[in-house]
Amino acid sequence: MVLGVLVSGSGTNLQAILDAIGAGRLDARVAVVVSNVAGAGALDRARAAGVGTLVVEHARFPDRRAFDTAVVEALRARGVEVVVLAGFMRIVTDVLLGAFPMKVVNVHPALLPAFPGVHAQKQALDYGVRVAGCTVHFVDGGTDTGPIIAQETVPVLEGDDEKALTARILEKEHNLLPRALQWLAEGRVTVEPPGPLAARARVRIETR
Amino acid sequence: MVLGVLVSGSGTNLQAILDAIGAGRLDARVAVVVSNVAGAGALDRARAAGVGTLVVEHARFPDRRAFDTAVVEALRARGVEVVVLAGFMRIVTDVLLGAFPMKVVNVHPALLPAFPGVHAQKQALDYGVRVAGCTVHFVDGGTDTGPIIAQETVPVLEGDDEKALTARILEKEHNLLPRALQWLAEGRVTVEPPGPLAARARVRIETR
Repeated sequence: MVLGVLVSGSGTNLQAILDAIGAGRLDARVAVVVSNVAGAGALDRARAAGVGTLVVEHARFPDRRAFDTAVVEALRARGVEVVVLAGFMRIVTDVLLGAFPMKVVNVHPALLPAFPGVHAQKQALDYGVRVAGCTVHFVDGGTDTGPIIAQETVPVLEGDDEKALTARILEKEHNLLPRALQWLAEGRVTVEPPGPLAARARVRIETR
Repeated sequence: MVLGVLVSGSGTNLQAILDAIGAGRLDARVAVVVSNVAGAGALDRARAAGVGTLVVEHARFPDRRAFDTAVVEALRARGVEVVVLAGFMRIVTDVLLGAFPMKVVNVHPALLPAFPGVHAQKQALDYGVRVAGCTVHFVDGGTDTGPIIAQETVPVLEGDDEKALTARILEKEHNLLPRALQWLAEGRVTVEPPGPLAARARVRIETR
């Protein structure tokens, strides 16, 4: 399975993918790491792992679709099969989703459908939930609405602030994302009903 | 802590409360079980435990507030301090909530704020979440929107139907509800900010 990883930040989830590949837990290859931010720490992690990088600065494009077109070209040129949004802070358009139907995966720091969008951990703390977590899901046209592949939970503890909860969730993300990608690599993940993402599409994981 | 338990159905959560009291895990007394359904199985469970019962049929009242007024009178007459909605299939009004401010507790078969309202387990299955659960919370004027006291999770397994998931969650409810009530009995549960339930009110549990 050839991965393209889209990043904007320090790239700890990219690192988790690279580590899982290195440890033989994820049967995949990262063909390219694309960042929309020139100085993103994720780029250093990619280079350290010998993975090709590309900076596509969104400010240089007239709109989201033009930006996505450039990203899609770069991904296709490198034979990418599955696109991973790993801390990628841009909304993707139908240009990317149409080019990689049901092949764009995101990790979100909440138990979706609760707390979609930005600052999910703060939303959870403000609401006062006792259990938080993270979700790996296929990306559809909505904000964190796509079919769920995997979820993991963490407790919310008395006295937690946003930083503490974010760190606790992130640790789970680092386990969950490579695990979900390995299910994809093994061909165990199907979306029902098949075809373009339906409103009620659900993921089935073949158990082995 | 003197409890009034409101029921409509078979009363397995009432049984969990009675069993926890019997086993010394819940330092409380059930003063009365009120059912809006004459033949509810929960009434038999109450009688078997020597607990007083009362049927208040909602069809005999002109509206919800009149019904709640009768229920409040019955609860007050028996010295009830905390009201537990245990499978009580009626929407409560400000009459009950005003008479027992921050003292009405509900158990809901979902990880709120996800999947409020009826058929929560089916909502979760239809959405395709990988983790489900239950929530014990204070009741406010909304539908399952009140401050969360406790939550517990269960996995959603491939092949689960509504019945299987409901049973798995219910088992957790039977643990969670008496445990949350015991926190109340120990005076460990506070709502912040204090006073009438605020939109952003959160529960603090004093750890011991």
